[in-house]
Amino acid sequence: PESKLPALGTTIFTTMTALAQQVGAINLSQGFPDFSGPDYLQLRLAYHVQHGSNQYAPMSGTPALREAISKKIARCYGCQVDKETEITVTAGATEALFSAITALVRPGDEVICFEPSYDSYAPAVQLAGGIMKHIPLTPPNFAPDWSRFSTVISEKTRLVILNTPHNPTASVWQKQDFDALWHAIAEQPIFVLSDEVYEHICFDDNGHHSLLQHPSLRERGIVVSSFGKTYHMTGWKVGYCVAPPHLSLEIRKIHQYLTFSVHTPSQLALADMLNHAPEHDENLPTFYQQRRDFFIDALQASRFTLLPCQGTYFLLLDYSAISKMNDVDFCLYLTKEVGVAAIPLSVFCKEAFPHHLIRVCFAKEEATLQAAAEKLCQL
Amino acid sequence: PESKLPALGTTIFTTMTALAQQVGAINLSQGFPDFSGPDYLQLRLAYHVQHGSNQYAPMSGTPALREAISKKIARCYGCQVDKETEITVTAGATEALFSAITALVRPGDEVICFEPSYDSYAPAVQLAGGIMKHIPLTPPNFAPDWSRFSTVISEKTRLVILNTPHNPTASVWQKQDFDALWHAIAEQPIFVLSDEVYEHICFDDNGHHSLLQHPSLRERGIVVSSFGKTYHMTGWKVGYCVAPPHLSLEIRKIHQYLTFSVHTPSQLALADMLNHAPEHDENLPTFYQQRRDFFIDALQASRFTLLPCQGTYFLLLDYSAISKMNDVDFCLYLTKEVGVAAIPLSVFCKEAFPHHLIRVCFAKEEATLQAAAEKLCQL
Ligand SMILES: CSCCC(=O)C(=O)O
Ligand SMILES: CSCCC(=O)C(=O)O
Repeated sequence: PESKLPALGTTIFTTMTALAQQVGAINLSQGFPDFSGPDYLQLRLAYHVQHGSNQYAPMSGTPALREAISKKIARCYGCQVDKETEITVTAGATEALFSAITALVRPGDEVICFEPSYDSYAPAVQLAGGIMKHIPLTPPNFAPDWSRFSTVISEKTRLVILNTPHNPTASVWQKQDFDALWHAIAEQPIFVLSDEVYEHICFDDNGHHSLLQHPSLRERGIVVSSFGKTYHMTGWKVGYCVAPPHLSLEIRKIHQYLTFSVHTPSQLALADMLNHAPEHDENLPTFYQQRRDFFIDALQASRFTLLPCQGTYFLLLDYSAISKMNDVDFCLYLTKEVGVAAIPLSVFCKEAFPHHLIRVCFAKEEATLQAAAEKLCQL
Repeated sequence: PESKLPALGTTIFTTMTALAQQVGAINLSQGFPDFSGPDYLQLRLAYHVQHGSNQYAPMSGTPALREAISKKIARCYGCQVDKETEITVTAGATEALFSAITALVRPGDEVICFEPSYDSYAPAVQLAGGIMKHIPLTPPNFAPDWSRFSTVISEKTRLVILNTPHNPTASVWQKQDFDALWHAIAEQPIFVLSDEVYEHICFDDNGHHSLLQHPSLRERGIVVSSFGKTYHMTGWKVGYCVAPPHLSLEIRKIHQYLTFSVHTPSQLALADMLNHAPEHDENLPTFYQQRRDFFIDALQASRFTLLPCQGTYFLLLDYSAISKMNDVDFCLYLTKEVGVAAIPLSVFCKEAFPHHLIRVCFAKEEATLQAAAEKLCQL
């Protein structure tokens, strides 16, 4: 059949991971750790599977997990979220994003997004019949230029999608960015989708600022997060979204026909984990900052220029001193000839992105990072 | 916001299960077993979780599971399916159905469906901008009346959705139904979505007939199935769809932005299970036929009229000798006053369905069925 998404191929993550495996390269492309999450979490999953918790979970998530999420939000952001009407557990953050976009965007609606941006937003908007409007972010800091906002907002604007800490640029929004966003949209009925899956991976005492901490935005906001990044279990595919009751109701209408419910024993195990070790997420910045700093040190001898990394487990490398290839070709070369797989930054952009930047993932054992750095230093 | 699915409430399954729990009724409403799947499957999940298989699975499913599925299809239906390009593992059959419908249905397209029908098809079609056309199925046999087909087919017909064994009516398509369908659509570019999640639950030596056994339909067909029903693990949410390469390509474009991938250790455990005990699905008809016959026997003393049950783990009961209430009210009464939760059949219909029928699930321990039958026999 003719395609409903004709311009779309396989995601870069699938392509690069497959290529890395094929040629035996160290895979710093797709974002996932090369270690597993806490033993306790694994044991609790085994426990629930073997103690009869294998049938459909409630559509919005198990009560225990929704309760644990609401406690975590109260602890981290000092904000009350009702577990019955405001939290929906989804098949990873990806399903939360797709459900929220599908629930809100109607044919002809415009959606504002910052670019580079994560690759799943645009197809969901397109399938809903919406039109993407981009605000470019520019290196090295990729901070939103708020004077640009007035050039893209219109009467048709329905939704703004933001992501902090930001994949792929590793930048983090400040409180004043949320204030500026509110200032820009307050007068119009515009919703905000805040992708905060790296909420617990923020460095240098910056601290994550959540949309949930901004009372006015909260009334129009959907916050998406995930346990995959926080608990080093990206393959479990358990995420969630938080939204006011009237928005959650619409998101759940979509979710109930998209997947209906999420892996029951994993939900129960995650609830146990959150209750057992609430300090886990507080230790995460240090955990990943050590890896970041280790990798940065190991790359000092290279000819790459390292960009600032405020959050996420991604680091951007500028290779302009090494090669004039475009970033896609450079990543293919890097994977096949040098033995390190990375992601070209232009794949996160619809508009031309004339920089020489690649993204590497440092959610890896030190030995992996060391081996990758040695190869990268040869260039 | 105004709703994109204004007519839609919470699914009947969520509502009835919650009500059953609230009033302490025996829950024969939502379709799930009150027992878990094979010990071996549980042990394999625990194994893979504790042996480091916790990161993203490949987008289309783990190679081991896709391989095991292709072997199962060859064994059951004598048909070769390419694991690389024709099988996609999804977050339950629900996601497979949603992805397939979203990939194929464009605004204004018409979709033919038999009624009563499972409740997730229509919202997916509506979100894609399609228009549902219904062919009514009538009691007691609910066999498709093929003379009706010409009254609904049009130049705009894009897709036919069928479901065999059929939820909620427990009827099963014969080979001649597939032949009749092919005859009706052969001349037009129409696709077929065949929901076969109860493929291994077919009774009285009827045997399941799969769309995959019909070579002409196969070229235009998407077959959806699930491990939740076959392995008594509805909460694991692992399903899959089988379609020719050019259709699988389009379905995967949707799947990769809907959920991206499915619970990795569950996929690996299911692959182990399929390889370890390929006879499991062959034993399933006997396993469920015993429960069906036990329940039918136990209901002989009741004033319900039992309808034929050729497949699935659902049985329809006609209560016209007991009450003149509509089926929704009767189910509420049954749950609250009698202590047995069931599903009213009219919720599976957009058009008026003037019958006195309810659906009960017999995927339960004999003690559960016995207790429920005793209550139902008091009416
Ligand atoms: C869903 S695969 C992509 C993982 C990820 O978030 C990334 O690499 O950016
Ligand atoms: C996804 S909940 C519904 C389960 C089911 O298939 C049914 O009860 O019909």
